[in-house]
Amino acid sequence: MALQLYGFWRSNAAFRVRVALALKRLPYEEIGVDLLAGRQFDAAYAEVNAGHMVPTLVHDGHRVFQSLAIIEYLDELYPEPRLVPGDAKDRAHVRALASVSAADSHPLVVPRVRKHLAQAFGADKESIEAWCRHWGEEGLATYERMLGQRPASPFVMGDTPTLADICIAGQVVIADLYGIDVSAFGRVAALSERCFALPAFADAHPKRQPGFLA
Amino acid sequence: MALQLYGFWRSNAAFRVRVALALKRLPYEEIGVDLLAGRQFDAAYAEVNAGHMVPTLVHDGHRVFQSLAIIEYLDELYPEPRLVPGDAKDRAHVRALASVSAADSHPLVVPRVRKHLAQAFGADKESIEAWCRHWGEEGLATYERMLGQRPASPFVMGDTPTLADICIAGQVVIADLYGIDVSAFGRVAALSERCFALPAFADAHPKRQPGFLA
Repeated sequence: MALQLYGFWRSNAAFRVRVALALKRLPYEEIGVDLLAGRQFDAAYAEVNAGHMVPTLVHDGHRVFQSLAIIEYLDELYPEPRLVPGDAKDRAHVRALASVSAADSHPLVVPRVRKHLAQAFGADKESIEAWCRHWGEEGLATYERMLGQRPASPFVMGDTPTLADICIAGQVVIADLYGIDVSAFGRVAALSERCFALPAFADAHPKRQPGFLA
Repeated sequence: MALQLYGFWRSNAAFRVRVALALKRLPYEEIGVDLLAGRQFDAAYAEVNAGHMVPTLVHDGHRVFQSLAIIEYLDELYPEPRLVPGDAKDRAHVRALASVSAADSHPLVVPRVRKHLAQAFGADKESIEAWCRHWGEEGLATYERMLGQRPASPFVMGDTPTLADICIAGQVVIADLYGIDVSAFGRVAALSERCFALPAFADAHPKRQPGFLA
């Protein structure tokens, strides 16, 4: 079994997959695609991923893309520990919480969007960062409300992290990158502290990657 | 079995769920939440969905939210016809294609984003519509490239539509709403024509909903 991950130190979607691979103790090689330099548009990478996006997982030569699809794929092939629970209602809850960051918050702050804000509206660096903080906070606030609707537990579904916790931790990574104070979101802050106490999460943080630029 | 769908005529995410329910021939009642009037922020709806978003599916009193999570939930409970195939590689491909619209394109044109563009950058109606057309076209272009990487078939995974086709058709719905010429994307146009030839897709189109405002 050979696993390669096309990722980027700063990519939140790559962070999610790194955590999943580490929780499942699956060894892999990471290949950096410099999104800030536009390397995702190189012809060679377009062959790998026609969406010009990271991450792409290559599993014994087979390419899988989009972070949530990759994690579900890994969970089906390597089910220990389960990142998507077995019960249909629990599965739906985990997937829904995953989407709050992966579909509703994070896509609003990716490089191509920041770049287009500058092109389309002449937005400067400061106002683009304010945009990113706005959507970063919106995601955290949604998670805070959603965590409050269920009895408290160490992680979303109990004593071990799932795909939902990975995506909530990812939203906290966005907060870290844009200087958002997570302590205003008490339940999220406590949950993410428990996540980042685990090496699988801590080692996957953008600031711990070789390419990290302070 | 009682199913209620909190939706909105214009919501692309509600469109996806309407198609899935119709393909599975599941009867349901739709309850409109007027997103353009901000009704998703009403206290009563916040109780239903703490994310202030549609759709929410209520299944025998149990609430499920986020369109892809809802469709996977329906597919697990009512597997005929299958919208997410059985094979792990095929499942990953369908989910990845679903994410191109549901996570990478559609979230950029939803009401809260259009509203925030006006607030943050003083964007006018015309430039907001140009923004929506830009991301609508980006999504179509990504689908066009991805469809070209596999042998042609009537639908993404063969002779019957899956979750991937639902999301591609949804991207064409965005094109319809913003006046994007889909014929520039030949494979997408042909696939969506096959989709909308089916009543499950045609009847779910925003322009066919009771609340449609021309």
